[in-house]
Amino acid sequence: MSRKLRVGAAQIGPIFREESRENIIDRHIALLEDAARRNVDVILYPECSLTTWFPTLQLDDSEVDLYYEKTMPNPSVQPLFDRAKELEIAFCLGYAELDGDNHFNSSILVGKDGKIIGKYRKTHVEPDFTPGDSGFSVWPALGGYVGIGICYDRRWPEFWRVMGMLGAEVVFIPFCSLGSRHLAEFHHLLCLQAGAFFNGTWVIASSHTGEEVEGHPHLGVSAIVSPLGEIISRSYTCEDELIEATIDLDETKKARFAPRAPTFALDRRPELYKMITDPNWDGVHT
Amino acid sequence: MSRKLRVGAAQIGPIFREESRENIIDRHIALLEDAARRNVDVILYPECSLTTWFPTLQLDDSEVDLYYEKTMPNPSVQPLFDRAKELEIAFCLGYAELDGDNHFNSSILVGKDGKIIGKYRKTHVEPDFTPGDSGFSVWPALGGYVGIGICYDRRWPEFWRVMGMLGAEVVFIPFCSLGSRHLAEFHHLLCLQAGAFFNGTWVIASSHTGEEVEGHPHLGVSAIVSPLGEIISRSYTCEDELIEATIDLDETKKARFAPRAPTFALDRRPELYKMITDPNWDGVHT
Repeated sequence: MSRKLRVGAAQIGPIFREESRENIIDRHIALLEDAARRNVDVILYPECSLTTWFPTLQLDDSEVDLYYEKTMPNPSVQPLFDRAKELEIAFCLGYAELDGDNHFNSSILVGKDGKIIGKYRKTHVEPDFTPGDSGFSVWPALGGYVGIGICYDRRWPEFWRVMGMLGAEVVFIPFCSLGSRHLAEFHHLLCLQAGAFFNGTWVIASSHTGEEVEGHPHLGVSAIVSPLGEIISRSYTCEDELIEATIDLDETKKARFAPRAPTFALDRRPELYKMITDPNWDGVHT
Repeated sequence: MSRKLRVGAAQIGPIFREESRENIIDRHIALLEDAARRNVDVILYPECSLTTWFPTLQLDDSEVDLYYEKTMPNPSVQPLFDRAKELEIAFCLGYAELDGDNHFNSSILVGKDGKIIGKYRKTHVEPDFTPGDSGFSVWPALGGYVGIGICYDRRWPEFWRVMGMLGAEVVFIPFCSLGSRHLAEFHHLLCLQAGAFFNGTWVIASSHTGEEVEGHPHLGVSAIVSPLGEIISRSYTCEDELIEATIDLDETKKARFAPRAPTFALDRRPELYKMITDPNWDGVHT
């Protein structure tokens, strides 16, 4: 059985506040159809892909709730689910999720049959969101094992290590990051490359990008990174853009179990890492 | 008080099997004197800096012990300690250490007064060495806080995180890595840059380099990396070479505590990292 997979990052450019949901979904479907023409099996949409990046707007509580989905799919998103199923393309979709009083920053993985395989709620959050309660998960999907982290999660080596230990072969990173300068791009790619290399996993990252509010440019730089940390493909615009690559899931095994490779399954010394999980550690005082 | 420091990586080129200890020490002293002329406060020598890289030789037990130091300093190394004290230069020195039956891969930090401040025994080891029993330490030194990791340790995000949590402002990485190809250099620098950035610490790495045994080239690429992960200086030879830079220890505070920076002191979710310290985890089975 082939372990090759055609993967894409379907980056979304600016979504302005006044843009209709119908139009936003049409843009998602256009990227899906582009993916179909390029024979892609699965695409990743960005973080909070269905709305403008509303945290910048500093809305009051009642207004901000309009940007959250109460169910998924819901009638406004159903056309995307329907078209993906017709085209037999799996996808990962980021959205703001209201669950009771909780304002989660979530992403779902949807199979080629249109069914939701798993949902992840962002763990490491900015103050706008409720810290996720889902923990880290890796699901059997797409002929391999797939995990999700959202934006700020990618700055945490602990997130990446747990992904690796859970056996992730592909990690999806939907994101939306303020910045357009050299250093923002460098740090973003450094996180993806280090996470991939240290844990021997493919990484796909897709950006909610562009300047929706003047003075708040979001980084582009959607990217596909190999288990050896190499950038295989990346976007160069801040508009709707699909990048794709053929990846071989078996490459993860080579990266993980080669002698003296970053073999976190060998040579670990967990008794020396205890501080990392110490709930009472309260910060560096030097 | 200034928190600026002049730091150097004193890389050592090939040390052939037949080379005398006296000559090896002379080479170390030559780099020390170069550092003095360049007004450097502290230099880092590489992993196993006093001998050829003997694991390649596949020696039998009695022969291999000749490559280990039983005390430190010892008469053969004393001239280096003496000259460093005269020049008022602190240094970090890697060497093979025999302690009873234990074959440690160790490094010491020596102050400007010639006294040993701390010793670290390599934690994550290749089969040639005994796994270190010292744990990870950070010492108050050089006007800041200094830690050491050796070679393979740098591939472990857990090592870097504990360094960060212990308050390291400078981490010394003496190393000796097989490889000369693009990927070896890329992975080496990726480890340093990710470790520095994720934990907001300066990193100085110094290589035991060159081709001591035909077909076994060791990587050069000694490097100084900022707390933002940027390469400030690097070597370009595989010979004895000193690189240096002026670093400001206060940069670590900016990198650690800026809003939404890699602030491992904020936003951590240790209850979700437990797998990392689970002594019973026995590897990925996917």
